[in-house]
Amino acid sequence: MDIAALRKAHPEHWMRAAAIRTLTLDAVAAANSGHSGMPMGMADVATVLFEKHMKFDASAPNWPDRDRFILSAGHGSMLIYSLLHLTGYADMTLEQIKNFRQKGAITAGHPEYGHATGIETTTGPLGQGIANSVGFAMAEENQRARFGKKLVDHYTYCIAGDGCLMEGVSQEAIGIAGRHELGRLIVLWDNNNITIDGTVELSDRTDQIQRFKASGWHVQEIDGHDPEQIDAAIEKAKKTKKPSMIACKTHIALGSSAQDTSKGHGALTSDDLIRDTKAAYGWSGGPFEIPADVKSQWEAIGSRGAADRQAWEGRMQEVSGSKQKEFARCYAGDVPNKLSSTIKALKKQISEGKPKVATRKASEMALEVINPIMQETFGGSADLTGSNNTLTGDMGVFDTDNRKGRYMYYGIREHGMAAAMNGMALHGGTKAYGGTFMCFTDYARGAMRLSALMGVPVTYVMTHDSIGLGEDGPTHQPVEHLAMLRATPNTNVFRPADAVETAEAWELALSSKSTPSVMALSRQNLPTVRTDHKLKNLTAQGAYVLAEAESKRQAIIMATGSEVEIALAARELLEAEGIGTRVVSMPCHELFAAQDESYRRKVLPAGPVRVAVEAAVGFGWDRWLLGERGKNGKAAFVGMEGFGASAPADELYEHFGITAQNVADKVKGLL
Amino acid sequence: MDIAALRKAHPEHWMRAAAIRTLTLDAVAAANSGHSGMPMGMADVATVLFEKHMKFDASAPNWPDRDRFILSAGHGSMLIYSLLHLTGYADMTLEQIKNFRQKGAITAGHPEYGHATGIETTTGPLGQGIANSVGFAMAEENQRARFGKKLVDHYTYCIAGDGCLMEGVSQEAIGIAGRHELGRLIVLWDNNNITIDGTVELSDRTDQIQRFKASGWHVQEIDGHDPEQIDAAIEKAKKTKKPSMIACKTHIALGSSAQDTSKGHGALTSDDLIRDTKAAYGWSGGPFEIPADVKSQWEAIGSRGAADRQAWEGRMQEVSGSKQKEFARCYAGDVPNKLSSTIKALKKQISEGKPKVATRKASEMALEVINPIMQETFGGSADLTGSNNTLTGDMGVFDTDNRKGRYMYYGIREHGMAAAMNGMALHGGTKAYGGTFMCFTDYARGAMRLSALMGVPVTYVMTHDSIGLGEDGPTHQPVEHLAMLRATPNTNVFRPADAVETAEAWELALSSKSTPSVMALSRQNLPTVRTDHKLKNLTAQGAYVLAEAESKRQAIIMATGSEVEIALAARELLEAEGIGTRVVSMPCHELFAAQDESYRRKVLPAGPVRVAVEAAVGFGWDRWLLGERGKNGKAAFVGMEGFGASAPADELYEHFGITAQNVADKVKGLL
Repeated sequence: MDIAALRKAHPEHWMRAAAIRTLTLDAVAAANSGHSGMPMGMADVATVLFEKHMKFDASAPNWPDRDRFILSAGHGSMLIYSLLHLTGYADMTLEQIKNFRQKGAITAGHPEYGHATGIETTTGPLGQGIANSVGFAMAEENQRARFGKKLVDHYTYCIAGDGCLMEGVSQEAIGIAGRHELGRLIVLWDNNNITIDGTVELSDRTDQIQRFKASGWHVQEIDGHDPEQIDAAIEKAKKTKKPSMIACKTHIALGSSAQDTSKGHGALTSDDLIRDTKAAYGWSGGPFEIPADVKSQWEAIGSRGAADRQAWEGRMQEVSGSKQKEFARCYAGDVPNKLSSTIKALKKQISEGKPKVATRKASEMALEVINPIMQETFGGSADLTGSNNTLTGDMGVFDTDNRKGRYMYYGIREHGMAAAMNGMALHGGTKAYGGTFMCFTDYARGAMRLSALMGVPVTYVMTHDSIGLGEDGPTHQPVEHLAMLRATPNTNVFRPADAVETAEAWELALSSKSTPSVMALSRQNLPTVRTDHKLKNLTAQGAYVLAEAESKRQAIIMATGSEVEIALAARELLEAEGIGTRVVSMPCHELFAAQDESYRRKVLPAGPVRVAVEAAVGFGWDRWLLGERGKNGKAAFVGMEGFGASAPADELYEHFGITAQNVADKVKGLL
Repeated sequence: MDIAALRKAHPEHWMRAAAIRTLTLDAVAAANSGHSGMPMGMADVATVLFEKHMKFDASAPNWPDRDRFILSAGHGSMLIYSLLHLTGYADMTLEQIKNFRQKGAITAGHPEYGHATGIETTTGPLGQGIANSVGFAMAEENQRARFGKKLVDHYTYCIAGDGCLMEGVSQEAIGIAGRHELGRLIVLWDNNNITIDGTVELSDRTDQIQRFKASGWHVQEIDGHDPEQIDAAIEKAKKTKKPSMIACKTHIALGSSAQDTSKGHGALTSDDLIRDTKAAYGWSGGPFEIPADVKSQWEAIGSRGAADRQAWEGRMQEVSGSKQKEFARCYAGDVPNKLSSTIKALKKQISEGKPKVATRKASEMALEVINPIMQETFGGSADLTGSNNTLTGDMGVFDTDNRKGRYMYYGIREHGMAAAMNGMALHGGTKAYGGTFMCFTDYARGAMRLSALMGVPVTYVMTHDSIGLGEDGPTHQPVEHLAMLRATPNTNVFRPADAVETAEAWELALSSKSTPSVMALSRQNLPTVRTDHKLKNLTAQGAYVLAEAESKRQAIIMATGSEVEIALAARELLEAEGIGTRVVSMPCHELFAAQDESYRRKVLPAGPVRVAVEAAVGFGWDRWLLGERGKNGKAAFVGMEGFGASAPADELYEHFGITAQNVADKVKGLL
């Protein structure tokens, strides 16, 4: 690469971009770890994007109508940290840059949502950012239709690398964006031909241009170091009605001796290399030093959007007070006041009517009353709408001719759905939920973990949550998934026992501001066990006494979801023999664990034998079975020991011994 | 669709295909569940494939050089059950067909590997089959190069649906196959334009032809109901050097009133529909009745390959005895006799040399001695070769010009890698392992669960297994993944403490015949803790006493992997204060749980306080902390309570309190 020619052709641009490159070199060297090559390669693209196109105001990082910038290639985190520092985001001080990757710094190894303003999503696990971007663009389209162009009118820009494009989730994202003509989504592909193992050719020969075109994208190919080409391509991309991919041919670790090599992908820390590279850039001054004129040019870029932002604030004042309030409420993630009374009324109706319905149907009953009063909900399913019961009558289907529609047919794309849900939640203003079979949590895990890590309150509607699914067999029957999800930090796993608990779980999920929720819902019908209407949301405590022992309490049976019915039937058997038995419903282990010790001990007092029943592996149950149980307490678990089988559900419950009789026998064996 | 015209054009073919369609209708009706439409739509393609192309012998289902048939669209399981029954596989009786989806039948809702001969892999979770197929084709190429064309020379056929192609894992599979020109792989796409939610248009507009071409595939488009077009296309596909995709335009639920609708995707059970459809087919006779002439035509197809098979057996006799033995050994999955002595020698060398190495490096040390004596190993990494330490000097890289190479650069495709590994293992003759960062278990979960469900002994090399990864931060630091994997049935999770345990774990993983293994390996260096050479594989018992209490035993500290070092240091602190402390190393919880009670109690006797230390969430540890501990036993866990952070590893251990001092303090607090 002829660096001298690049410098000469656009000297001011060159220095602005070099500021990113040198900050990257210095920060990585100081940390003695990180990824130098990507920011060095994409600095020109990022500079032009921020200078000429991005609508943002560094002094108001959370302005709702800003353009969103997603660094899908998150290992190149010094690119975004440099941009945020240079443009003047208050929290991204030079001290933070100097502390790159150190404890307590907001400049983590990969960009972490919530650490610094201007980081729209956590990236690093490849492919997530581009898939999040689809959700950002969906939220923008949907809210533009809802609130009007005066309040919502922005773009989503995403920088993706070869790794992002090789991950399968990118195909799901590309498919969704292409199908729905998300024209405000612009992906800038860092086409540098290098991965960690070597050249891309080692593992891939895919023609990405043709691949994106095949899914209906507008595609351009440019020299990613030519600011004029970059500018023109973005300008064109903004005008097309299709999602755009701009293939930016770049040189990883530009201008260094590691340029165009996999070594350049990683940490370039040698003093010599840094000195020589800076010399090639025409860059003088010590580490972390930015010439005053370059810094002031960047700061001007950072404040360029202030007028736009003020104009937007003016427009916001012009709309009705109720619209202002609704907009603010949705962006704050607050539920409407009437949610509580709506849920209470539904609970009362259920407790009185005592329907025998699957909890997936109960979930639909809840959504039928919730969705009309929460226009910010946005639902969907990965091609199991009729099974997940996620579509309610009022929503409308999101489509190219109905951007107001609040329901997405995601297709058979669990991972893409979950990542899009994250993007919608991160965008703000939308509460996303989406459904699939619980077993296919496996496919969505990559994005579900990020929901938890970022603390975005999306809701996963996971139906067919056990062998109760029946004939589809073990490939479709979760047994370890409750444990997987319960082991994941900051995730509330709800497994409601009936329609009342399901309504309560939805209230909690929608009210959550920083924890995602998983609804584990039955395929099979379940009786109403909460026949005594209570205003209080009992699910909020995670576990509670559903049925008290009639005679002297000798046993406690704990259960969740579809097995609460079995626990109650076991209690009947035991009480008939004079064995006093308490049944504890435990719809959410996490919320129960969060209660104070006195409440937990009240629900699970020491002394009685304990039996837990759940149609899943027992992994993780020992805490409740064996913990604080008193010195004479004995315990047993009734559930699955391995994978399921293909047969009608009732026969499977019998076959695997998940029956009232077996639970009662286990209790008696312990006494 | 003009059924009469189809019947008239190819009357004999029609009846053979109709046998599949009517068996499907009858079996689904009897089960009152299942998927009728797909077998009805793809019956013509499957009939021609089996009649004219598939090399197989129903009387010798495990003949190693048979063509492989993968039904990626596994919900259409009646297609394969019908084919196996009609062609005369002994175990697929009419009784089994009649018991479709019933308890104990080999005709599960989705095809389950191991239930019936002729089922090459378990499918149902969409996209897995097509990704497995890539592994089958890789194994064939690699073994053809190794054993010669006389012994290995076959094709892999895969039927995939729209759902398979929408799942992201399919893109990873397509990319791998295209890059490596897997010309023996032929995918037949059931292009019926219908998903569960409705038409494909609801969720996707991808031009699949262009998409496959973009990754270097040979593509044809045909009428999937025209036997001549089907035949010609397969013939052409077999001759190209690229992987082939044949887009078969079909009508789901052909000839029924549900044709071309999403209703037709599911269970068609109405008596009227079945009667009318059979009438349109020109099919008489009662349920499950196949006309004798049709059955005999099918049986002739089933025995067509017998001569080929016998010829192959003859060729096998012509090769050297040692080659015959090696071939048989590899297909039996047996390890060579000298593996045991090789591992023992390595262990001795390590115990004497006491290297301080990361267990990922120790894994490489093991592979360096294993790979040369096990030519059937096939390694790889999802673009982290230098970090996972999975490539040894002797392997060679699998490529278009080096089919003997036993190492694959999978690219950034964890899910595709795992599914390909499953395919290789299922093909037989190959022992597959593959690496990524442990955190990206999330991406591979869909295929890893199927390794466990099918019982295929692949090995996942998951390095950077904790916060010990350091600066890359929480997106790359697993905390819940050990629990996730331990909760999964039939999965051995090894977390070795040093190079000796790592060598032992590899011996166990490679010797496994029906359980996949996960190696959780450290990024950071660890001291050799097994300095006293023992011939016995102590890891085989899952847990053992690594260091006994010197003074009266008051405490037991349990630990795995990188925290064993911390446990030993804590023991030093405690013994210095006269507190007798045993350290138990627990490299594999599953194998420990499988020991008899007397051994478990010997390792974890009742009485002493118990503290476990592991740099992960404590979920699942209560079994060992609280179980069988005696009435005075107290317990505590030292580990992670949430996600990690970005900083140097040592600082993170300190920050999260995973230190010898903290472990010792916990013990003292309990005493």
